Amino acid sequence: MDMTPAATAKDLRLAVHSGTVADDPDVVASYSRDRASSAPVGAAAAVVRAGCVDDVADVIRYAHAHRVPVVPRGAGTGEAGGAAAVDGAIVLALGGMDRIVELDTEDQVAVVEPGVINAELSAAVRSDGLRYAPDPGSHEISTLGGNIATNAGGFRCAKYGPTRDAVLGLEVVTGEGRRLRVGRRALKGVAGYDLTSLFTGSEGTLGVIVGATVRLTPLPAGPEVTTVAFFPSFGAATAAVSATLRRGVVPSVCEIVDEATLASIDEWKGTDYTDAGRALVLLQFDTDAERGQAAVEAALRAAGAGEVLSTSDPAEARMLMDIRRLALPAAERHGQVLVEDVVVPRSKLGAMVAETERIAEHTGVRIFTVGHAADGNLHPTLVYPRGLAQPPAEVEEAAERIFRFALGCGGTLTGEHGIGTVKRRFLREELGTDGLDYHRRVKAVFDPAGIMNPGKVI
Amino acid sequence: MDMTPAATAKDLRLAVHSGTVADDPDVVASYSRDRASSAPVGAAAAVVRAGCVDDVADVIRYAHAHRVPVVPRGAGTGEAGGAAAVDGAIVLALGGMDRIVELDTEDQVAVVEPGVINAELSAAVRSDGLRYAPDPGSHEISTLGGNIATNAGGFRCAKYGPTRDAVLGLEVVTGEGRRLRVGRRALKGVAGYDLTSLFTGSEGTLGVIVGATVRLTPLPAGPEVTTVAFFPSFGAATAAVSATLRRGVVPSVCEIVDEATLASIDEWKGTDYTDAGRALVLLQFDTDAERGQAAVEAALRAAGAGEVLSTSDPAEARMLMDIRRLALPAAERHGQVLVEDVVVPRSKLGAMVAETERIAEHTGVRIFTVGHAADGNLHPTLVYPRGLAQPPAEVEEAAERIFRFALGCGGTLTGEHGIGTVKRRFLREELGTDGLDYHRRVKAVFDPAGIMNPGKVI
Repeated sequence: MDMTPAATAKDLRLAVHSGTVADDPDVVASYSRDRASSAPVGAAAAVVRAGCVDDVADVIRYAHAHRVPVVPRGAGTGEAGGAAAVDGAIVLALGGMDRIVELDTEDQVAVVEPGVINAELSAAVRSDGLRYAPDPGSHEISTLGGNIATNAGGFRCAKYGPTRDAVLGLEVVTGEGRRLRVGRRALKGVAGYDLTSLFTGSEGTLGVIVGATVRLTPLPAGPEVTTVAFFPSFGAATAAVSATLRRGVVPSVCEIVDEATLASIDEWKGTDYTDAGRALVLLQFDTDAERGQAAVEAALRAAGAGEVLSTSDPAEARMLMDIRRLALPAAERHGQVLVEDVVVPRSKLGAMVAETERIAEHTGVRIFTVGHAADGNLHPTLVYPRGLAQPPAEVEEAAERIFRFALGCGGTLTGEHGIGTVKRRFLREELGTDGLDYHRRVKAVFDPAGIMNPGKVI
Repeated sequence: MDMTPAATAKDLRLAVHSGTVADDPDVVASYSRDRASSAPVGAAAAVVRAGCVDDVADVIRYAHAHRVPVVPRGAGTGEAGGAAAVDGAIVLALGGMDRIVELDTEDQVAVVEPGVINAELSAAVRSDGLRYAPDPGSHEISTLGGNIATNAGGFRCAKYGPTRDAVLGLEVVTGEGRRLRVGRRALKGVAGYDLTSLFTGSEGTLGVIVGATVRLTPLPAGPEVTTVAFFPSFGAATAAVSATLRRGVVPSVCEIVDEATLASIDEWKGTDYTDAGRALVLLQFDTDAERGQAAVEAALRAAGAGEVLSTSDPAEARMLMDIRRLALPAAERHGQVLVEDVVVPRSKLGAMVAETERIAEHTGVRIFTVGHAADGNLHPTLVYPRGLAQPPAEVEEAAERIFRFALGCGGTLTGEHGIGTVKRRFLREELGTDGLDYHRRVKAVFDPAGIMNPGKVI
């Protein structure tokens, strides 16, 4: 058969019911990247904007029969190249399947199509006193399907866990084009293997998520208290987080910001955060907040905090949260960025940060670091000049040394962004040879032809 | 080769380093059952009491090479026949591998061998202000390896989730005898597929859990409040639970007890609970407890509660919890029991209970029902005469009708006990034909010879 892009698009038009097919190069290019600027991008043959589950199943069956690669994508906000196109691929865009199918506020469950925007689900249930707890940084623009495919994290992970903890069941189309329901609507269950968790975070390499049943969480019943504390060093700040958490308090948000980031925000916004300290800890409590506040502040001060500010006023809390939200744009003012995503045991945060500083000094790469401290998740953000198609060698070297150190601490390459293409060459070091072998065999169960997002993860 | 039991035991003695091998029929019989009295039990060839991971790996490699079935077991407290022996099998007892390898109270992580008793881990970290959150009914005698193999639930599931939520990483020996580490020590991570969740709840059908890295949870920082409310009917009690949870409060325990159980406790202990009502709701709050208590009591009364008692006194709280803990022995006073484990969406609890009552009336089977109401998890406990080796036909029929109704509500066969042998014939109805096919293929990845706990789950 003729495998030119044009032929593929013609065939695909026959397979698609309610969606659309495009092979215009500009359109294809606009669907070929995610946010990982360092990920290689191939020349896809066509884009299918799926309109319904049948579209997805028919496209995958076509691709399976003709051994054409398929790259699924949501909003393209991934940070690891998981949605970067590969040569000859069908890019399967799920963003148009964006219906909230059912909101069951009594059972605190929603049934959604994959293209529903994370924040829109929370907005839809707010008046019922509920929210969708997982809140990746991209929550205002990213899709639930993409969040699930990457097992996205977020600020509230500290208390509510990653996306996986909110997913009760999935409808998927496997790499063979078979429709499969995994998990359930009930809040718990142990009938059979946990294929729901297997698909969550599989980055489109086993199949396509075409529907999800997710748990909704009550909005906090009491007042939220937000606390910001400044420390003389990043190491002192991470130690303070550990000391505070040892008191048994469970923050809903627990963020940390380094001096380079504070300085960049000061320079940009005219603030004077660096006068207050060289690292910042931001905590939010949504239960036992008022009772616990004095103890938390005391713990932070005992651990060496200078200035400590607390508020239960929502507008003031938003202003404090904005310091953390400004971190990425503040780094991006200095060039293109490679955002890393290592996790280490919490007690190793100080060592990880000290090593990151040594690596910055040794390689000459400018690194801004923020993170979700309660989870031990750091985002060292490596800056390189605009205009380069790929990060320069010293940035790759710095990133590699950061990964290696995290692994050596018993940590992981990626806490919430995924492996995609950008961390794939390091995965064997984390999983081991046997682990990688079993991963390949699991993939082959659901995608025997190897068409699903090839070259990603494994 | 000679496949008689004696030959197996002789070979096994060569394979085992620090453990022991027994083929005395009485010893073998004592390791051949779990608590599921209705599960068929085969004639195992030998028992290996493993002393170390090498024992497990060598036994599995032997079994893999000779196609001998292996039935792993912890303390044998399972309710679904998952640890029931099969003909010719090696029973692999992990209870002797019972070291707490590491307690890291700063990172709130423990590394354990599979034979550590659930309650002993909590006891070991209590003075550090921590506990292991999952608390199956058997927590004082069951092993963490068994808890993980069945993804055990418990009272605290309402807030802290099932065992899966506490498991960060596992060391397993697969059905090929390969040692494999899955997951990590870090609190979150998305590098590769979630094989940790895949092994959790796989009931020994993929491999053997030989080590686990689990999360420890801070003991509640504030006072716990326990509330008991009596209702005129089980339906009114389940509706009250829904109404209370809709207010956004998150109980750490949320139990429900039916009239038959209360009457049996009254008859046994001389109490007068049935004078107070025909169903009981028991709630415990470990955060925002004092502030929320008035609202919770008001919600319960508005939903039709008669008597409502609350206490923050630990001794009084234990007395209230004992009402729930007496439920199973109170049912067992009337004969042998088949404990079911269905989960339905919370809004369907009332319908599930009404149907259970109809089934009891229609089949003439005496059924006592308690459950973890917040999760929608009910344990209808079917009673039949002592001395019978198997439940009589009317009990099987009643159980089957309960399963079917739960599935029809969007529920599941089993919330926390597992499929084992006793629910295996209904699994296809829950998973579907395609689902079961993928389950079989996933099993074949880790256990290609089909030696791991054959005849269980799938």
